[in-house]
Formats: sequence, C-alpha cells, structure tokens
Amino acid sequence: MKTLSEWKLHWFEPGCENPLTIAAPSYIDHFWMTAKVPGDVHSTLIDRKLIEDPFAGHNDLKCRWVEEKEWWYRTVFEWTLDDSDEGITELAFEGLDTYATIYLNGKEIGSTQNMFISHTFDVSRELEDGKNTIAVRFDPLSKHVEDKEKDVWCSYGKERLWARKSSMNFGWDWGPRLVTAGIWKEVTLKRKSKTRLNQVFVHTSEINEATANIEVSMELKKSFKQRGTYTATVSLFDGINEVEDSIDIDRSSGKLEMRVDNPKLWWTHDLGEPFLYDLTVTLKNEEGSTIDSYKQKFGIRMIDVEMEHENGEKLFTFNLNGIRVFAKGSNWIPVHNFLGATDNDRYKKLLYLAKESHMNMIRVWGGGIYEKNVFYEECDRLGLLVWQDFMFANALYPDYNHNFMMEVEEEIQFVVKKLRNHTCLALWCGNNEIDWIYDRKSSSGEITTPFFGEKIYHDLIPAILHDLDPNRLYWPSSPFGTDGEEDLDAESIGDKHNWQVWHGNVEPRKIGEPVVQDISQEGVSFKKYKSDYTRFSSEFGMHASSNRYTLQKYIPEGEFYWKSEEMSYRNKDHFHEKGILLMEGFTGIPSTIEEYMDFSMLTQAEGLKYGIEHYRRHKPFTSGALIWQHNDCWPGTSWSLIDYELLPKASFYYAKKFFAPVIATVDHDPGKPAIITVINDMNKKIKDTLTLTVETFVGEVVFTKEIPYEVEKNSVVILDEIEEIKLLQGQPPEKVSLTLQSAHHV
Amino acid sequence: MKTLSEWKLHWFEPGCENPLTIAAPSYIDHFWMTAKVPGDVHSTLIDRKLIEDPFAGHNDLKCRWVEEKEWWYRTVFEWTLDDSDEGITELAFEGLDTYATIYLNGKEIGSTQNMFISHTFDVSRELEDGKNTIAVRFDPLSKHVEDKEKDVWCSYGKERLWARKSSMNFGWDWGPRLVTAGIWKEVTLKRKSKTRLNQVFVHTSEINEATANIEVSMELKKSFKQRGTYTATVSLFDGINEVEDSIDIDRSSGKLEMRVDNPKLWWTHDLGEPFLYDLTVTLKNEEGSTIDSYKQKFGIRMIDVEMEHENGEKLFTFNLNGIRVFAKGSNWIPVHNFLGATDNDRYKKLLYLAKESHMNMIRVWGGGIYEKNVFYEECDRLGLLVWQDFMFANALYPDYNHNFMMEVEEEIQFVVKKLRNHTCLALWCGNNEIDWIYDRKSSSGEITTPFFGEKIYHDLIPAILHDLDPNRLYWPSSPFGTDGEEDLDAESIGDKHNWQVWHGNVEPRKIGEPVVQDISQEGVSFKKYKSDYTRFSSEFGMHASSNRYTLQKYIPEGEFYWKSEEMSYRNKDHFHEKGILLMEGFTGIPSTIEEYMDFSMLTQAEGLKYGIEHYRRHKPFTSGALIWQHNDCWPGTSWSLIDYELLPKASFYYAKKFFAPVIATVDHDPGKPAIITVINDMNKKIKDTLTLTVETFVGEVVFTKEIPYEVEKNSVVILDEIEEIKLLQGQPPEKVSLTLQSAHHV
Repeated sequence: MKTLSEWKLHWFEPGCENPLTIAAPSYIDHFWMTAKVPGDVHSTLIDRKLIEDPFAGHNDLKCRWVEEKEWWYRTVFEWTLDDSDEGITELAFEGLDTYATIYLNGKEIGSTQNMFISHTFDVSRELEDGKNTIAVRFDPLSKHVEDKEKDVWCSYGKERLWARKSSMNFGWDWGPRLVTAGIWKEVTLKRKSKTRLNQVFVHTSEINEATANIEVSMELKKSFKQRGTYTATVSLFDGINEVEDSIDIDRSSGKLEMRVDNPKLWWTHDLGEPFLYDLTVTLKNEEGSTIDSYKQKFGIRMIDVEMEHENGEKLFTFNLNGIRVFAKGSNWIPVHNFLGATDNDRYKKLLYLAKESHMNMIRVWGGGIYEKNVFYEECDRLGLLVWQDFMFANALYPDYNHNFMMEVEEEIQFVVKKLRNHTCLALWCGNNEIDWIYDRKSSSGEITTPFFGEKIYHDLIPAILHDLDPNRLYWPSSPFGTDGEEDLDAESIGDKHNWQVWHGNVEPRKIGEPVVQDISQEGVSFKKYKSDYTRFSSEFGMHASSNRYTLQKYIPEGEFYWKSEEMSYRNKDHFHEKGILLMEGFTGIPSTIEEYMDFSMLTQAEGLKYGIEHYRRHKPFTSGALIWQHNDCWPGTSWSLIDYELLPKASFYYAKKFFAPVIATVDHDPGKPAIITVINDMNKKIKDTLTLTVETFVGEVVFTKEIPYEVEKNSVVILDEIEEIKLLQGQPPEKVSLTLQSAHHV
Repeated sequence: MKTLSEWKLHWFEPGCENPLTIAAPSYIDHFWMTAKVPGDVHSTLIDRKLIEDPFAGHNDLKCRWVEEKEWWYRTVFEWTLDDSDEGITELAFEGLDTYATIYLNGKEIGSTQNMFISHTFDVSRELEDGKNTIAVRFDPLSKHVEDKEKDVWCSYGKERLWARKSSMNFGWDWGPRLVTAGIWKEVTLKRKSKTRLNQVFVHTSEINEATANIEVSMELKKSFKQRGTYTATVSLFDGINEVEDSIDIDRSSGKLEMRVDNPKLWWTHDLGEPFLYDLTVTLKNEEGSTIDSYKQKFGIRMIDVEMEHENGEKLFTFNLNGIRVFAKGSNWIPVHNFLGATDNDRYKKLLYLAKESHMNMIRVWGGGIYEKNVFYEECDRLGLLVWQDFMFANALYPDYNHNFMMEVEEEIQFVVKKLRNHTCLALWCGNNEIDWIYDRKSSSGEITTPFFGEKIYHDLIPAILHDLDPNRLYWPSSPFGTDGEEDLDAESIGDKHNWQVWHGNVEPRKIGEPVVQDISQEGVSFKKYKSDYTRFSSEFGMHASSNRYTLQKYIPEGEFYWKSEEMSYRNKDHFHEKGILLMEGFTGIPSTIEEYMDFSMLTQAEGLKYGIEHYRRHKPFTSGALIWQHNDCWPGTSWSLIDYELLPKASFYYAKKFFAPVIATVDHDPGKPAIITVINDMNKKIKDTLTLTVETFVGEVVFTKEIPYEVEKNSVVILDEIEEIKLLQGQPPEKVSLTLQSAHHV
C-alpha cells in the first residue's frame, strides 16, 4: 500500500482555467504551496500564513473568500507496475470535501459530491510505470447548489440542504460558519486480489449461559468468469485461545455461524471489561493460497433497547447482555471546524475524558460527520456505547429529488456497511430533531411545505437497515415517540430533548398546537428538570464559559472583558439573555468576566447535577441522560463540558460524581422533607453506611444521622425521608449545608 | 394513466435565466410555441417554420444553432388527487434527449443524462389537486462535455464519447450531423400499487417432443414493512386454450416453471408461424384482491448460436428450435434523424418490407438507439430475429471514468431488463467494430492509447447478462472472433464485416499488421465476395442512389444533375470514387444523373445477389448475410435497400429473389463450367425440375436442359456442372443469357 500524503495546493477563480490543462502531467505546479493530506484548505492556509487563524477575533469573516474559489490539489509520485500477478490496483480517497473531480495522469477518472463516503477507483490500467500525477479539483459549493430550490426550512445556511457535507460548516448555535474544502482523509493506492473479500459482517446472534453464537457473513468480489470455490476461515482470538471455523463459498457470498464457549463478553467500562477479540477472516483459493484477509477487533455482546417494562409502562432502556443500562453520556459534535487536519489524539483525549467522567454512551449528533475511524475504535476499546445519528439535522431535505436520493442511498449503504461491525454501535438514529421541529414549525405556520426528507428517515434508511443491519434498533429521529396526543418530545414514550431548561420551551405540547416559549428566569430554570419524567433524555444542558486560558488566547487584546463585542462573538446562540436568566436564578448576574466564568460554570455544573440526579432516581423508567454537549469545535461559549483547548469546565468534575455508578442523592425542596436515595448502576449488590450531616457554614454540626443500607444490583432505593424541621434544628435553611458521606467510598 | 402530450417549448441562451424562475408554476409561457410530445426540438421548429427543412439542400448547416441553446419544455395539466387508496403515482419519461432537468410544480425532481433509458419519479407527494406544472430543461451538450478529454479515437464528433446519446446525431458516413434535443418518448402519470410487479422475466427453458418448459421469474417492488404473502398467477393463452399456474411469493421475488403441452412454437416467418401467446401475470394479496398485473406477447422458442459443426469446423449459426437458420437480413440504422417525432408507421412499413424481401433477421446497429417498442413488437409479430448491439460504435469510450461507467451500468441493466422478454431477440452484441478497428488503428500507429471502453464490452456487459439474461449469446463486438493469427474480421471464426467490397480493405490481415487498402476497380469489386468464406457476414454492401422522387424532393432546383454540389452533398461517405469504381467494373461510369441512378442501383442489386448467392451456397459454414444497410435516416445516397421516402431500390426487388427460401444459383466464371446449385432453407424436402435455358438477346435458344432434383430440407445441393463450351454452343458469351426456371415455382 502506498499513502499519498504530500500534495501541492492552489486556488483559481471558478471555471477560469481549462481543467485538462491543470490536470495534465506536464503542468508546472512548482509555484503552488505544499499541503498535507489528510488536511484541508483552511489549515494549509493557516500554516502558510495566508490567512490569520479564523478562530481569533472575527477572522472567520476575513477568510470567507476561501469558499468561493476553485481549489486544486496535485501530487506526483513514483509507481512500479507489477504485471506479475492477477490483481488490481485501487486508488482510494477516504474523504473528499466535497465537490471533487479527480484526474489521474490527465484523465478524468470521476467526480464526487459527498464528503461522508469514500471513493474508490480501479486504476490498474491508468497507472504508469514511473511518474504518475493525480490532480483533484474542488468546486465552490455555490456552483452546485446555486440553481437549487432553497425556500424551505433549513436552519443555518440553506446551501447545506443539497450538499452532503457537514451541516456545522454553515455555522450552528455553538460555532462559526467555515465552509471547508479539501482532501480530508487518507489517499492510498492498494494492490488487491481480483477475487477478494468485499464485505464482512459480524455480529453476536445469541448469548447463553456458557456459549455465544457469532454470525459472520462474507461477500466476495469476483468476476462472473471465476467459478472456483473459495474457502473462508474465521478465527476469534482472545490472546490465548483461538476459535476457528471455515466455510466454502462457491457463489458470491457465504455465512458462517460460530459457537464460542465461555465467551469473554464485552461490557461498557462501568459494568465490566470491554473485552475485544481479534477476529480474522482468511480467504483461500482452491489451491490453498491465501488471496485476501480481513482483521478487526470484535466484542461479543448483545445490545437491545427495551421498549416496555414488565409493568406495562413504556421504556427506552438499552440492554447490554441482559443488563438494563442507564445511559450516561453526552452529545458529540465535530471536534474541530477543520476536521481534515485534526489529529487522532484529540479524539482519544476527548473520549478518555468521557470515560473519566463515568460516561458510558456518546451520541454522534446528526449535524456533524460520521466520525473518523479512531472514534469508533476508541469507543470499542474504552467500553463506550455509541448512539449514531445519520447526518441530517434541522432542515427539510429534498427527498423529492431523485439524484439527491440516489446520493443519500449510496451514503447510507456505505455508512451502514462501514460501521455495523463496531461493537460500540448501539443504535441508529435517522436525524436530529427534524420530525419534532417539523411539527412545531408547521403548527405555528412557519413551515407550509410537506415534510420533505420524510422518505429518507421513514422509508429509505429503514429499508437499507432491514437488509444490512437488521439486529440493531433504528430510531427515526431524536427526539421521537408520541402517544398520539403529545408531540414527539413526549416524556411518556421514546426519547426527549429537554429544552425547557435554557431555551424555555413550554412542555408538554400537543401535536399541532402552537409553540410556546417562556423565556423568563423561571421558564429557563434548571429546576424544570425535576418535572421531566422522560424515558430517555437525549439532549439537555446549559451554557458555560470556556476556560480563561482558552478565551484569552483567541480574544483580541483589550477585549477580554464582560460583555465586550469580542466576548459576545464567542456565543453563537440566538438570545444571549438565556444564560443570564439561568445564572440570575442561581448564582446571580455576573458583572465581570471573572464572575461570568465562575457563575456560568457553576450554574451549568449544579444544573446538570440537579437534572441528572433526578433522571437517575427514576431509573429504569428514565434510562438515559446524554448531556448537550461534550466538546467544542472552536473556542466559543457553549453547552460543552470540555472546551476547545480540551480543558474541562466545572461540570466535567461534577460529572465524575453525578455520573458515578453508585451515588446517593438528596432531593429537597424548601418546606418539604429531604429524600435520601441511593442509585446503584452496578451489577452487584452494595452494602454501606451513609452519614448525613447538616452543618452551618462555620462548621457547627446541627444534625447527623447514620443510615446503613443495602441496595440490590442495578436498582434505586429511597433510604430515608427526613422532615426539614428535623434537619434544620432551628437554623435558617440558607445558613446550613447538608452532606452525605459513604463509609466505604463505594 | 394520463399521457402528457401537449407542451410548450422555448429556447434561452444557456445559463442566462434562473431555472427556478422558468420552472415556477407562476411563470407565463403564453408566448412559447406549442410542441407535441413525443417529439423533438427540430421537428417542432420545422412545423412552426422557424427552421427550413434540414434535409433540403444544405439546411442542416443553417440550423446548427439549435444545438447551442438551452431548450425548455413546459406543460400545465389537471390532476385529481386520490387519497382513497394505498398506491403511489409515478411520473415516467420514457425518453429524454439528453441532459435534462425536471421540475414539478417548481421543484427540481431530478436530472438525467442518458437518452437511452427511461426516467421514473414517484411524485405522489409532489402532485397537487388541480393544476400542476412540469418543466424540463435541456442543456446544450457542450455544457456537459466541454471539460472532458476528447483526444482519443472517436469517429464522427468527439463530443459523443461522453454522452449517452445516439452516435448518429453527430453525423455518419450515411447521414448529416443533427444534434437533437427534446422529450422524444412518451410522458405518463400512472397510479401504481405500493406492492407491485417490478420485473417479470420469461423465457423458454426447454422444448421436448410434445412439451415446452417456460420459466417465469418475478420480482416484487414492496416496502420492507410489508410482510404478507402474495400470489402470482401466470397464464399463457393461445386464443383458445389457457395454461395457468401460480406461486406464492413471501419475499421479494419468485420463480415459476410451467409446462406447456403441445406448444405452438414461434418460428421466423420463413420457417413457420411466429406464434405468440398472450402471457399474463396477475399479482394478488392475501385477501385475494388483484393488486397488479402484467401482460405481454410471448413466443415459445429456443434460440442458440452453434459455434461448431459436427465435423469440427467452426460455425456461427443461429439455431431456432433445433433448426439451423441461415440468417438473411440487413442492418438497421435509426429510421430518421428526428426520432422523437417519427411515428410508428414508419417502423411498421420498414419491417414489413424486410419480411417481404424474405429477411429473417435485423441487426440493430450500435451507433443508433435501442429501438422503440414498436420495433421489437413488430419483429415478434412478423417472425424476424433481432441481433441487438449495445450502443457503442467506432470510438474509445472513457471506461476509466467512474461516473461514466455508473451511467453505462444503469443503461445496460435497464436495456437488458426491457428487451430480454422479446421473443425476437436472438443475440446481444457489445459494440460495433470497436475491437476490430482498435487493432487496425493501433497497428498503424493512429491510436496510441490503451483500449478504453474494453471494460464495458468484456467485463461490465457480460457480468450483467450473466445475472439478468444468461441464456442468450453475448458477442462482444461485431466483427469478432480470431484464431489468434488473423484479426477480428477473420473468416474462419465468428462474424465478419466484408468491407473489401466498396471500402477496398485488403484481407485477410493478421493482428498487429498494418492496414492495407486497395481502392482500385478490382480492389473494391463485388467479385471479392466470392473469396469470402466467413462464418457469418454481418455487414457488407454497396451504395445505390435514392429514388428520383426522393432526391428531387430535397435537392434545390437546378442542382438535380450528376456531380452537382448538392448531389454530392447527399453522399456522406469519405471517398466518393469508390462507387464509381464499382460501377465502372460492371455497368460502366454514369454520365448523367439518370445513368447514375440506374447504374448504381443495378450494381448494388447485382453485387448483393452475387455475394449473397455465394454465401448461401456455403451454408451452414456460412450462416448469415446481413446487408449493410436496410434503411436511411435522411434523403441521401447510401448503402440502403430502402430510401428515406420508403421507396425500395432495385436491390430490394432483387432481395425478394436472392433471399427466397429456395433458390437455384448459377455460379460461373469466364472459361469455367457453370455450377448449378439449389439451396433449400425450408424445413421440408423439395422436389422439382429446373429448366436451364441459354438464349441470345434476340430470343434464339442455343441450349436447354431439364434437371429434375430433390433437395433435402435445409440443405444445399450442386445439381450440375456444365462446361462453358457446351452452354455457349459457339455463341460469344457476351451475346447470350442463361436462365433457370422452376417447374413448380417453389
């Protein structure tokens, strides 16, 4: 395999040069800048100091010209032809962002229009012995979408409707508009056998007491002329022992069922070890020669979503190997605006922090990208489940257009085949918020069109999954589920985005009813969480400032003060007062930037704790709490737990407590008794003693109680209810604090 | 079903108007011209007198501007929504020529780039109750091919390389360049059941003494959500009796094998009756309601190509129901330059004439189109076999381009599924002359590139046929077949294009040898046929003038004389002297237009007779003679038997004799004996008496002989060899004629 990572880059006015001239091997590109691949145009321009860092100040606006140009990459490389074998050579672009035309030795070998999928070309005949030239032209987006209808609902940049490109390129309420271009993933040349493993699909079909059954489906790529029988051997290796089985394949596909005795199951890290086997498939021809092989990590596990409790009540509960899991985690947005040049280390750190804060699930949000390989590999390895959205968010996509739908179909098939083997993958979700908001905006008259895009989430995707990945839950949208009366954000069924807190949505809301917002201190307060008995809270959260280091680095000198224009520019949400109202009801309104940083972080952390403890107490009827949002793509002010510089906010440290597998909570409202609850998410019984202490701020103990307890595995127990009057012992409530302490620090 | 046939048409400068403006329902098109659909832009402009008839004089050059414009069609129609059932509504464009973008009620529902296939859109949601508007934009070809590489071999107009559009649009050696545009086939709106018959494939798998087996494969289109079992009932009705069988289909496809006792076989008209059954497939749901049905005519027959004789010699012999058939026929080019507006009657007349002249096979040549439905329906009905080329001719197609190959793949799949059920279809052929000429031009240094396009004919098409139509012969090109030494036009194997006659090719020629042409009277003479012992002569022929009526109608006044500029313009072949040389060796050189018409027609007729009688005498080792060419697309001078005005040339009347199922031939060279041969293509023994008479031109009989004979079915017998001296009885050979007469006029 050869990786092509050294390229030249240059821009042209769109359509002004004959592409065959620029693509020709004889073209002189000595004056072009050098560019790394994977990478992107913006990062290259930053490196070459041709643009100032778009994250500093208002520089993002200064580099808008980048999206209006035609960008060309060229590379020249040496290749030695190998006529000795019967193979082919494939040129693979793992990712092209987005409207690309590819030339090999001056010949146009194809054009592409989807950054989410890879593009592979058999170039066996086109490669030359010695010097070869590849040129790739990226058209400005406008060339391909300018004639398209855009007069429909589409939040943040209508051009994105027609482009299979990350939505967040066009700006979102937590990041700037930066429309990228470039070869954003690896480019390789690979020799392949003419007959080869085209696809392997592996999943656990059954787990019993002491055995597990694994199904391995294999699809061969071979010429219709080749009639021989091939032998595929599947091996599962746990580091010591190997289980192996074989199957003869005389057509183009075969399926093998394997029994594994005493399997080492894959668990999320909080429930056990995320054990991964080495799975190998070897393909041999009739002469016994190995002609292809395939390797991956594979965890034996069953994952399912329970939709109904034994008592008949609705659930939305992930079940891993028979254990009901309370999903604790966060929503993941692209880790950077310039994804091409972003290294894997950033992914590893962010996922490590997820695990550190006891998260067991990450939702890949539908306005970003199907994530890079490293993301899923790390989730497999760390024991984190993945909620995977398809990349459709907050818009009415043109499903009435045949060509668009063909592109989407290819994308869905590609993505499903690529990701379905990942052990971490727990659920497919059709889109972000589209079904729900379509109803909201239609009801208010803001949308007057049919539900364009519906065919994607309700016909196309489920039909493809039915064929390619029938064993995993497909959930059409997030939020989704209605009892027929309440809207898709109904708490009684499915998942919910709690945007009462922060955005002031007034809920419950019936289907077809006008939308009501209550943007008042009470309307946006995190206290609202406590009236939310959702089955699964898949989005909720509050802003907090980035850390001082992060802000100071990107805000121009003299502008680092509370309410400066530049500070304000960091916040892309549409109504900045919401954060103030939240703080006002808790910490009070900040008057300096220092106060803002402290107050907002504290409000977020306490607010999340307040909500999540509530959700967890309701387990298993509430079975998930995924915070909006885990990370940032730029140094802004957002709902994230970790800022752009990978510095955690206060909420992250709180999460280490409120997401801990075993917690004791105090649920107390003024004038009401304090309710002491222990939540045990572990798969074992807990026995401990809690010490409850009420003391004044100067350390004078006014009340104490020891509460010995036992909690069965994976359950919730209310230990005690103590009258306020008894706790206070005559002290005013604002003068004391209550602590719970575990004797054994479980 | 609703057929949309009344449209408006207008042109714009490319890219100058916003397409959404023109496509909008509110756009005022009152000032546009009306246009019939099916139709084409040129025909509409002729009707409206906006261009002069392009076939008259040099008018084709005066309307070149047509191909440079952007053409828009619009139609407004009433539609009543039917929400009562569970069906869908499909908008089907049977043919769009070529780069079309389609808007329904102002929404872009898709764009297309292939005139050879139909384009179907589910518009259930986009249709409105009441008034609806469809607009279709046709881009000028140049917009889509201007940036493409064209520096490779491509005869007649390099733009055609990249466009899936009829090659003859760009001119050929028998017709002018007229690059068409328009909605060239029907546009319909159809209600369909959600679950329906997507594909039916029917063929005869076996014929025994008194039974035949029919295989009917059915593919359902249904939602993955529909799990029910459907019942498909197949009926074969011969007008009196019905054979019926059923199958339950619970997945997406099913296959039924039916036995037909005492089948009425389909024969070519010369061998029997082309009997067609009514085949009906009815699909019912579990409640027993009919939800879809399918009907076609179906002939029970086996067709095969024998490649080897019992004696080990190579053959290329069609075998119909166990009978070796000598294929007598011609090559079919598009029936008109303006195909859209051409009516079915023209097809019927041309095919009727084919049958009238005893033809039993028509080759649909690869530089035209996959023909209209009427063509195959008539061939089924008339008992004419079809040799079907795929539409690739005389060029190196860009198979290195992924997008091009995807388009071609879709086309091949579409065409195979559409045509495979036609009883007449005898053979698939990959292309016209490409493999052969690639070798010729490479050897002479005229082509220096690899064989671009090879993947289409040697990988893609056979792989698709392997899946979709495995029982019919696939022949990669015409001509094709080599013993490894001689080139692909080798006479010892496969088919041959005899262009020694007319074009002066010197053959045999070894692979890799330089091309030699002998354009002399002897080099181009039709006498060359007699040294051609090809297995199958799939192209050969000579020019003849069109009829006086035809020429006079289109040649400007004062220019209807021999060697006028306008007369010359009718002949699109590259070296006009070839025709003169041929006549010189037979009738002498014409000096007036009357002589040219007579001499050229006579030369063609006699020359074809000379060649075809020779080919037929060699049966079964030669098993086919397909004359180049049956018809004309414009009023020119060409190899055709029937001119543009559907007036036969002399050769047509000759064909009625030289293609007759039973003929007696005299094979005589000066100084050699005359060999009397009877060829019996019928499936019965012939018993007759021939009377041979030699007489002077004033009617004086110099020799006569009665030859009683019997000829077994489907065979050739040399009846007699008579010395020249005996026949002449002292008369000079140029003063006598020899006739053969049958006693019973068999």
